[in-house]
Amino acid sequence: MKKIINDPMNFVKESLEGIIYAYPDFLKFSSDKKGIMRTEPPAKGKVTIVTGGGAGHLPVFLGYVGRGLADGAAVGNVFTSPSADAIVNVAKEVHGDGGILFLYGHYFGDTMNFDLAAEILEEEEDLPVKTVRVSDDIASAPRDTWEKRRGVAGIFFAYKIAGACADKLLPLEKVKGITEKAVANIATMGVAISSCTIPESGKPTFEIADDEMEVGMGIHGEPGIRRTKLKTADEITSEIIDYLIEDLKIKSGDEVSLLVNGSGTTPPEELYIVNRAAHLLLSSKNIKIYKTFVGEYATSLDMGGISLSILKLDNELKEYLDAPYYSPFL
Amino acid sequence: MKKIINDPMNFVKESLEGIIYAYPDFLKFSSDKKGIMRTEPPAKGKVTIVTGGGAGHLPVFLGYVGRGLADGAAVGNVFTSPSADAIVNVAKEVHGDGGILFLYGHYFGDTMNFDLAAEILEEEEDLPVKTVRVSDDIASAPRDTWEKRRGVAGIFFAYKIAGACADKLLPLEKVKGITEKAVANIATMGVAISSCTIPESGKPTFEIADDEMEVGMGIHGEPGIRRTKLKTADEITSEIIDYLIEDLKIKSGDEVSLLVNGSGTTPPEELYIVNRAAHLLLSSKNIKIYKTFVGEYATSLDMGGISLSILKLDNELKEYLDAPYYSPFL
Repeated sequence: MKKIINDPMNFVKESLEGIIYAYPDFLKFSSDKKGIMRTEPPAKGKVTIVTGGGAGHLPVFLGYVGRGLADGAAVGNVFTSPSADAIVNVAKEVHGDGGILFLYGHYFGDTMNFDLAAEILEEEEDLPVKTVRVSDDIASAPRDTWEKRRGVAGIFFAYKIAGACADKLLPLEKVKGITEKAVANIATMGVAISSCTIPESGKPTFEIADDEMEVGMGIHGEPGIRRTKLKTADEITSEIIDYLIEDLKIKSGDEVSLLVNGSGTTPPEELYIVNRAAHLLLSSKNIKIYKTFVGEYATSLDMGGISLSILKLDNELKEYLDAPYYSPFL
Repeated sequence: MKKIINDPMNFVKESLEGIIYAYPDFLKFSSDKKGIMRTEPPAKGKVTIVTGGGAGHLPVFLGYVGRGLADGAAVGNVFTSPSADAIVNVAKEVHGDGGILFLYGHYFGDTMNFDLAAEILEEEEDLPVKTVRVSDDIASAPRDTWEKRRGVAGIFFAYKIAGACADKLLPLEKVKGITEKAVANIATMGVAISSCTIPESGKPTFEIADDEMEVGMGIHGEPGIRRTKLKTADEITSEIIDYLIEDLKIKSGDEVSLLVNGSGTTPPEELYIVNRAAHLLLSSKNIKIYKTFVGEYATSLDMGGISLSILKLDNELKEYLDAPYYSPFL
């Protein structure tokens, strides 16, 4: 896939600089330039939400630094965890007096580096740190070991709920608890139809034939659960919705929020065609969609495909889902 | 290019339905389902802004129906003008008591059908209609005949200014005048690196080699001004910025707003790399960027490429650019 870039080695550095040039009133670099944070300091008593992960997934993670969302994000190289130092640095520079919640997608490298950063912040800086990992990719592990799942586009719901709890000035333990409840009720499943190309490698991450798709493929090209002929939007949506309903044990009468996500190259028109199919299916099963989000909420560079995420709602989660939020990316 | 769709003949119909399913509190169909409009009626005395054009360019045009933007939009088939009937229909159903401004991109079919619709609305419905056409694509005609240019991504600025004027309850003639001033100060230039594929044809609209790009290509694949080897992001940006500065006669000390637009498949990271280059170049020429917009503001299905638009500002345009706006797409 052709790219509009300069030296591939500068891909992350230059895209970060481009973000800060775009929104200088709202976002600034952390001092090592490996993270970004809000220019506005956290309100008194507010839990500070710090996130991060590999680059190449915009608006994940940097685009979720905003009002009613996260306060700061550390970023690694493309598809590579940020270092513990980068995480410590942004957390030290952005935190207020309400403690810190680390909120990120469940991957081995991220877990290792965020855990090490938490230790450093607690021991050297005496800052209280709690952690919630998002594990919403149902293709990556069964429901009975759901905490082993990888984090994918459903992380949007986790930011939304955690950010709203923090804005309400709930204490750290409570922000963590409600966010954990949300995460346990998020499920995501996607299909990939074309590979991304990491700038430094210049080659597709995986091969896929012109008439094929892969169900459940991860956002870095991790193997999915099945490769089949490319199906129609209605067939793909039906298959995914069945998986999500089964996984979250959603029943007639339940309320959910729906996220239709584009992986990178998928045009918005196709996302809305998928959304149409999802609404018709859920409505036919008497499952109420309380709020719908359609767009690029977690991408994988120039990968083609879509994912559907569901957040199963209760009254508490609905309240936090409704809270105002803002980021220049959303 | 692979697509996640159903029957290509239903591409537009199903994507429109998906939009209404997504945002039922905010948007509704016009009665013939060939247009959409805000559920909230226009304020008393407000000019109603009606737009439209071919499908396949989301968020153009439907995504610009929102607060502080347009009130309704008629949509045609992919890359095809809406019929005069569809335009009349949405205008009749959405208008308030402040008159109607037709605001759309300058193309032959759209001009013909919007002009016919204006005649019908004035003669049969006694509704005052004024028209502003956006002609920002500097590759499509020279500056001295700029009104012959095609409309491309810079239409975002026109919606933003017109919508803000209308929200301020300015009279129709004044909304038209300020929007015309904005349009005369918008210039756009882009490059394409890969073709889109219209669902019904299933074949790329144009051929372009793996190491080539086309400067100035239109959003439907209209020929540009030069085909060259694919250059770096910095080189592409520098070339485009030079064209824009020359076209708008921008001088040291001038203030502009910058829009970095992705044509479809271009990852957000690449748009920010282009934005970085644009900021460095403009700043080196002492041109102040008052506000920056980066993202997909006008797409061409799965075309690869970017465009840069500049709105040259004065104090009046700055005021309207700053006014609040909302659409679920932006």
